[in-house]
Amino acid sequence: MVKPWDGESKVGGIGLMGAPLSKPSISLSGASQSPSVIRQMFSSLSTYAIEEEKDLENERITDFGDVEMHLTNIPESHNRIYETFTHVMKEQPEMVPVILGGDHSISYPSIKAFAENKERVGIIQFDAHHDLRNREDGGTGNGTPFRALIEEGVIRGDQLIQIGIRNFSNSRPYHEYGKEQGVTVFTMKDVREQGMTELLQKSITQLKSKVDVIYISLDMDVLDQAFAPGCPAIGPGGMTSDDLLEGIRMLAKEPMVQGMDIVEIDPTVDFRNMTTKLAAYVILTFMVNRG
Amino acid sequence: MVKPWDGESKVGGIGLMGAPLSKPSISLSGASQSPSVIRQMFSSLSTYAIEEEKDLENERITDFGDVEMHLTNIPESHNRIYETFTHVMKEQPEMVPVILGGDHSISYPSIKAFAENKERVGIIQFDAHHDLRNREDGGTGNGTPFRALIEEGVIRGDQLIQIGIRNFSNSRPYHEYGKEQGVTVFTMKDVREQGMTELLQKSITQLKSKVDVIYISLDMDVLDQAFAPGCPAIGPGGMTSDDLLEGIRMLAKEPMVQGMDIVEIDPTVDFRNMTTKLAAYVILTFMVNRG
Amino acid sequence: MVKPWDGESKVGGIGLMGAPLSKPSISLSGASQSPSVIRQMFSSLSTYAIEEEKDLENERITDFGDVEMHLTNIPESHNRIYETFTHVMKEQPEMVPVILGGDHSISYPSIKAFAENKERVGIIQFDAHHDLRNREDGGTGNGTPFRALIEEGVIRGDQLIQIGIRNFSNSRPYHEYGKEQGVTVFTMKDVREQGMTELLQKSITQLKSKVDVIYISLDMDVLDQAFAPGCPAIGPGGMTSDDLLEGIRMLAKEPMVQGMDIVEIDPTVDFRNMTTKLAAYVILTFMVNRG
Amino acid sequence: MVKPWDGESKVGGIGLMGAPLSKPSISLSGASQSPSVIRQMFSSLSTYAIEEEKDLENERITDFGDVEMHLTNIPESHNRIYETFTHVMKEQPEMVPVILGGDHSISYPSIKAFAENKERVGIIQFDAHHDLRNREDGGTGNGTPFRALIEEGVIRGDQLIQIGIRNFSNSRPYHEYGKEQGVTVFTMKDVREQGMTELLQKSITQLKSKVDVIYISLDMDVLDQAFAPGCPAIGPGGMTSDDLLEGIRMLAKEPMVQGMDIVEIDPTVDFRNMTTKLAAYVILTFMVNRG
Amino acid sequence: MVKPWDGESKVGGIGLMGAPLSKPSISLSGASQSPSVIRQMFSSLSTYAIEEEKDLENERITDFGDVEMHLTNIPESHNRIYETFTHVMKEQPEMVPVILGGDHSISYPSIKAFAENKERVGIIQFDAHHDLRNREDGGTGNGTPFRALIEEGVIRGDQLIQIGIRNFSNSRPYHEYGKEQGVTVFTMKDVREQGMTELLQKSITQLKSKVDVIYISLDMDVLDQAFAPGCPAIGPGGMTSDDLLEGIRMLAKEPMVQGMDIVEIDPTVDFRNMTTKLAAYVILTFMVNRG
Amino acid sequence: MVKPWDGESKVGGIGLMGAPLSKPSISLSGASQSPSVIRQMFSSLSTYAIEEEKDLENERITDFGDVEMHLTNIPESHNRIYETFTHVMKEQPEMVPVILGGDHSISYPSIKAFAENKERVGIIQFDAHHDLRNREDGGTGNGTPFRALIEEGVIRGDQLIQIGIRNFSNSRPYHEYGKEQGVTVFTMKDVREQGMTELLQKSITQLKSKVDVIYISLDMDVLDQAFAPGCPAIGPGGMTSDDLLEGIRMLAKEPMVQGMDIVEIDPTVDFRNMTTKLAAYVILTFMVNRG
Ligand SMILES: [Ca+2]
Ligand SMILES: [Ca+2]
Ligand SMILES: [Ca+2]
Ligand SMILES: [Ca+2]
Ligand SMILES: [Ca+2]
Ligand SMILES: [Ca+2]
Ligand SMILES: [Ca+2]
Ligand SMILES: [Ca+2]
Ligand SMILES: [Ca+2]
Ligand SMILES: [Ca+2]
Ligand SMILES: [Ca+2]
Ligand SMILES: [Ca+2]
Repeated sequence: MVKPWDGESKVGGIGLMGAPLSKPSISLSGASQSPSVIRQMFSSLSTYAIEEEKDLENERITDFGDVEMHLTNIPESHNRIYETFTHVMKEQPEMVPVILGGDHSISYPSIKAFAENKERVGIIQFDAHHDLRNREDGGTGNGTPFRALIEEGVIRGDQLIQIGIRNFSNSRPYHEYGKEQGVTVFTMKDVREQGMTELLQKSITQLKSKVDVIYISLDMDVLDQAFAPGCPAIGPGGMTSDDLLEGIRMLAKEPMVQGMDIVEIDPTVDFRNMTTKLAAYVILTFMVNRG
Repeated sequence: MVKPWDGESKVGGIGLMGAPLSKPSISLSGASQSPSVIRQMFSSLSTYAIEEEKDLENERITDFGDVEMHLTNIPESHNRIYETFTHVMKEQPEMVPVILGGDHSISYPSIKAFAENKERVGIIQFDAHHDLRNREDGGTGNGTPFRALIEEGVIRGDQLIQIGIRNFSNSRPYHEYGKEQGVTVFTMKDVREQGMTELLQKSITQLKSKVDVIYISLDMDVLDQAFAPGCPAIGPGGMTSDDLLEGIRMLAKEPMVQGMDIVEIDPTVDFRNMTTKLAAYVILTFMVNRG
Repeated sequence: MVKPWDGESKVGGIGLMGAPLSKPSISLSGASQSPSVIRQMFSSLSTYAIEEEKDLENERITDFGDVEMHLTNIPESHNRIYETFTHVMKEQPEMVPVILGGDHSISYPSIKAFAENKERVGIIQFDAHHDLRNREDGGTGNGTPFRALIEEGVIRGDQLIQIGIRNFSNSRPYHEYGKEQGVTVFTMKDVREQGMTELLQKSITQLKSKVDVIYISLDMDVLDQAFAPGCPAIGPGGMTSDDLLEGIRMLAKEPMVQGMDIVEIDPTVDFRNMTTKLAAYVILTFMVNRG
Repeated sequence: MVKPWDGESKVGGIGLMGAPLSKPSISLSGASQSPSVIRQMFSSLSTYAIEEEKDLENERITDFGDVEMHLTNIPESHNRIYETFTHVMKEQPEMVPVILGGDHSISYPSIKAFAENKERVGIIQFDAHHDLRNREDGGTGNGTPFRALIEEGVIRGDQLIQIGIRNFSNSRPYHEYGKEQGVTVFTMKDVREQGMTELLQKSITQLKSKVDVIYISLDMDVLDQAFAPGCPAIGPGGMTSDDLLEGIRMLAKEPMVQGMDIVEIDPTVDFRNMTTKLAAYVILTFMVNRG
Repeated sequence: MVKPWDGESKVGGIGLMGAPLSKPSISLSGASQSPSVIRQMFSSLSTYAIEEEKDLENERITDFGDVEMHLTNIPESHNRIYETFTHVMKEQPEMVPVILGGDHSISYPSIKAFAENKERVGIIQFDAHHDLRNREDGGTGNGTPFRALIEEGVIRGDQLIQIGIRNFSNSRPYHEYGKEQGVTVFTMKDVREQGMTELLQKSITQLKSKVDVIYISLDMDVLDQAFAPGCPAIGPGGMTSDDLLEGIRMLAKEPMVQGMDIVEIDPTVDFRNMTTKLAAYVILTFMVNRG
Repeated sequence: MVKPWDGESKVGGIGLMGAPLSKPSISLSGASQSPSVIRQMFSSLSTYAIEEEKDLENERITDFGDVEMHLTNIPESHNRIYETFTHVMKEQPEMVPVILGGDHSISYPSIKAFAENKERVGIIQFDAHHDLRNREDGGTGNGTPFRALIEEGVIRGDQLIQIGIRNFSNSRPYHEYGKEQGVTVFTMKDVREQGMTELLQKSITQLKSKVDVIYISLDMDVLDQAFAPGCPAIGPGGMTSDDLLEGIRMLAKEPMVQGMDIVEIDPTVDFRNMTTKLAAYVILTFMVNRG
């Protein structure tokens, strides 16, 4: 289903791009191995969506491969992600990029590249964490990407909607920073009480007035540990995979949604590739509900 | 609770029969070890169902042991399953056979033996997959049992109801083959939207006009990977164990249901025997709701 | 968030006390390692509850450390738990003790110590099992604590409410013993059909007329195996972690609730500390809903 | 090869007796599961010793089963071992008992029972550790059996020879206690420099003047961690399995050797049952070189 | 270092051929995954042999890929191995085939194909087991390949030398069958007492008078479990990897040695690919000592 | 045995310093966790060396803690190691530093700091690999430390002796670079044929004429994979732990030896902490043979 880019064609559907970087992570992370494992998982899935009676056979995913990382220069690695993705997205204006992290730090250069090629960008971030830490202490790590995007002026705070933020997983100052910046935050309590569909309807309505395109940043640790056992920062109190898939089906149908990344899966600690399997399933669910 | 057959008695309740065969599986599978591990799991469970305040103490399960498999002749192994089960079921007309696989290939000889001893047989198959692949390429493997039953005339397509069929887990041609043959298919979308109870009511109503007895073929991979981590083909998007148990409670109460198999658990890749524990729990749930 | 007791202060909030004992367990159990692992899990959690927008920073947990166990004299170990906790609770009348087991046998000396310092004590026990076995055969093991409390006159049977009792996990005689003694039993069927909130409202109403304070005894195996993979006696058919957290939020708001223990987690068989993470999350959820 | 005792016969060869007790261990130990796992390992071995061209088919091992342990009373469990083994050994004067631990604490009641039925007993203990700790602190644990035997007058210190004692694994006071009591100690340096055969020749010569029979107490942690990965107290600097088997072959040929125990294997932490496999191999090696 | 065959060239050095078949194994075996894992291991090794100061850069290994197996027809799978290898070896008379199993059953069709293209073939089999079981019971499994070769007249018994045969791992009748047939057997005792070099000198001398070429059949379970933890039939009492590599260096220098297989590694139970790493190391050691 | 530095005292014996950095590693490595795990391993070892009958009780190890690493700036992390160690070594001229990596990249700043405080430094490097890669491609990674030391003029090539270099683990150009620079290389073949003692005698003799002090850089992957299963780059063909300990005992007695590092252990992939246990054992073996 996934085929390598031939080096020439203009791509109409999904373009897969790997950012195999997890050295910026606060705790030891093998998320750099995710792009290759997610690709393997595709090979164990079929193209046929029986629920929608739709076959993706003729809409295969084009794979642009991985950006090569520098061994010891992390800012250079981030820069290579930015440069490469900027170039590919410019060459492929019709393509919907789906970026495979890596840890969440890769969303900073990825979204920066995405924004360069689009008008105003709105972000729907699924995450247990704000990822709004300051960058003075440790540079651009996996706790800072959205802070970096705001501070560098790539987005304004009110272009960012965070869904699934969880208790005991964030410090108050970052929540307050988000509020000051106008970030919309839906906690897990909101998910439990209002449901995914309602939250996303609100989110899309709100973004429509402010942005031209929407980018989904999916940190898999938004899921409860029972459903995503392979994230570095697993924990209880998160959403089910059914909640997430319900959200993906809805977002796929929204034409403003034009890009996505999936981050924070460490295949070396996963159980039987459950979490990368789910990531591949999310991408196919997006595709089948797209057209 | 489980006691070996004494070699003579007529058995009234459940008769356990093991088919420890998984060499026909497409991917490496230790499902051949399931019968012995499921038996161990029984020994860690009690006979008392507090929810129903009913004790199964006096309705113990009779264990007919395992069919001995041939080391290198797989068709011969299938044949031994067929011959043995035909013999036992003939000798034990009152018994409700519960067959422990093995991979799903064992359902072909098992149901063939079951049908030989009954009138028309309806099948309710819980599965993420159709298992309707053609047999030209690889013989009777774990992807073909229901194709084989239809092609060999054991059942007609409209005697088969498949529940829990999943996206990206099946090829379109097999869905189409099923439709041509009159197979009823309820996808996971149907399960999510209509609920197990409603689907099963429809299923039983539909079968009642066509068959005399119903056989449940339970491929544990119908469950979401979070609830059945030990199936060879785990994946996301499946049902919960609560969904399944709700279904089992309902089917147990239907007198037409006269047989069952439980297949596709590989204890060598399971986590702490979760999946075989659930299989044993399913059997006891069936028993307690039976009488 | 957790700080050791300074040896002097009167403690107002939660006082953590470890009872690292699991030699009384029927099957091999490393639950003795839970207190230290749960403490480690706290260090990976923040104090901020975004759902309630409340920071626990100034209500940190006071840690009284672990009771030292005897190497080979189990009754002496139980006695040390009783003596130590009696002493601490007497010195700290305002403190809400949260006791980290160990296996469930530690609830006997723990609740006995708790009761000594309070008027009449009601117990809400979350558990798949009654734990009402007789003590003639094996002394005070992890299957007997509530039998021991009743037989020793620490509580009457009608002061005990059991929630989450499960099929095929208990023998009938212990259910009958419970009924004779006036124990209230809510099975998993009750949880599924009535919901946690309703069951707990009934429970509190019922206890209010009989007791002065309520103690929660939380055996983590009340959870389904998918949500608490690290309990010695995992199994299917249990509650979700959402069910449990809903219950904890409600109980925390009830001022009569004055103590708690969390038992039966074996970190040596857990998957990525999921179960101890959940235990720490339960304690923080209790705290944040308390005040 | 191993057959259960028929309840009557006088046994000529090896009599297997299980002491499934590891609650006295200082660190968490599943050594209680060793007897059953070692028995399983026998079933994967044949009776034929090609090196000696000798078949053990007609000298099968008689299995007296396991002593049943008390759930919470450890001294009672030790006592049951002592009582049961005393009884069996008295009834079976020709039998060579091979006792399967359990942790090393079981050697105290086992050797006491052995000594009761024999004249003066010499012990050749293979171990990384002296096991001469005092019993004031924790009773009879797995660090005290030889202290207990000396203090209770079962043996004098000069009847004990320790082989394989290792650096950084023992406290000086216990070495000194051993010297005061006349215990002979061969360290791993002695093993490396003199070789197993020479050490054992010295040992036997020395014991011959003092005792009537010799008992081998084999703590598997005498082996280097690469060869016995399943011992609770694994470490580097130990002997190879070849060293040990060389010693066993030699000791088997010595008619004074009349009993043995094998202790301190925890199958729950082993790698692919390597250590229990080696234990079974040791017993067969003993048998084949015996007669 | 390993490059796929271009479909045309005549190959001078080593030709790699995979036989990914382990369904004929007596116990569950994932040895079918070995060919692909051994290939991965090559990619983590360099071409440079510093001990010999020789670079294999220009003598790369040609990879003919894997024979495709039938899903359920095991004799057909064996036949495909035979047909394919016969064809390749005929086309490539200069090539030294190195065959990657698979279980040991694949040596029967492999050596039959090898023999077809050569004059008289001598076999040096490294193995803990004779593999001389009869085929009446289970057909050509992984315990029968050398019996099959003798019975089918591919070799006479005196063309077979077995090295490393181990105690308690073989039944006497198969040893006797071997002796009757003139098979030369060197047990582990011979390896320990005479050393690998001496045994191999004897072996080569003996074969020289009887055969034209020598084929090495390397069952990795000839190694002690500490050195080959990933074999299905691991056990103690085997040789070290140093012993084996010493043997390989010697055999590589013997021009009569013209083929080899490496079998019985199950990567799914190995520890960190130790055993497949060693297999790749063996092949390179063979190459570097060859020229 | 290990006590934290009091912030004032002059240290006479061993000073432990942690460099928890493994982000410069070519493959994913958790070697950053080694310092803390090695410290835990000390706590399970005693101070008494029975082989030498010497107690280290009064020569405890002083622990200077870990250097704090930067989250995303690897050169800054290396610089912090250099600055911190330079400072500590200057303040503690009598101390023998023992540095716990981390990956081998930390030896560059560590040895640079060591050299700054000493006259000419000789290095005895135990390693399977040269670690002489160029730094153009990836900066100072774990394959370059000795190249960096030579290129930066910290040592000349003839001040470096490499022991245990292995086949198929190095590229020829780096061997040639080493020869050009006058590096002495002893391969595993040299170790097998000449023995550790002889190689080290040659090494010390050779260094004596050129340097004032000797520093041991111990990459644990010099050991065979059977003895050090927790190194990132495990493989066959290496030395035994006995070989290594023999070398350490000899080097400890040489007064010129004044510093050491131990690197390349990844506790997250080790088996039961075998490799960190061995590291702690190496340090104690060094100490006991020192004085
Ligand atoms: Ca994130
Ligand atoms: Ca996150
Ligand atoms: Ca199926
Ligand atoms: Ca299926
Ligand atoms: Ca309980
Ligand atoms: Ca329980
Ligand atoms: Ca011992
Ligand atoms: Ca010991
Ligand atoms: Ca073989
Ligand atoms: Ca073999
Ligand atoms: Ca290195
Ligand atoms: Ca290295």
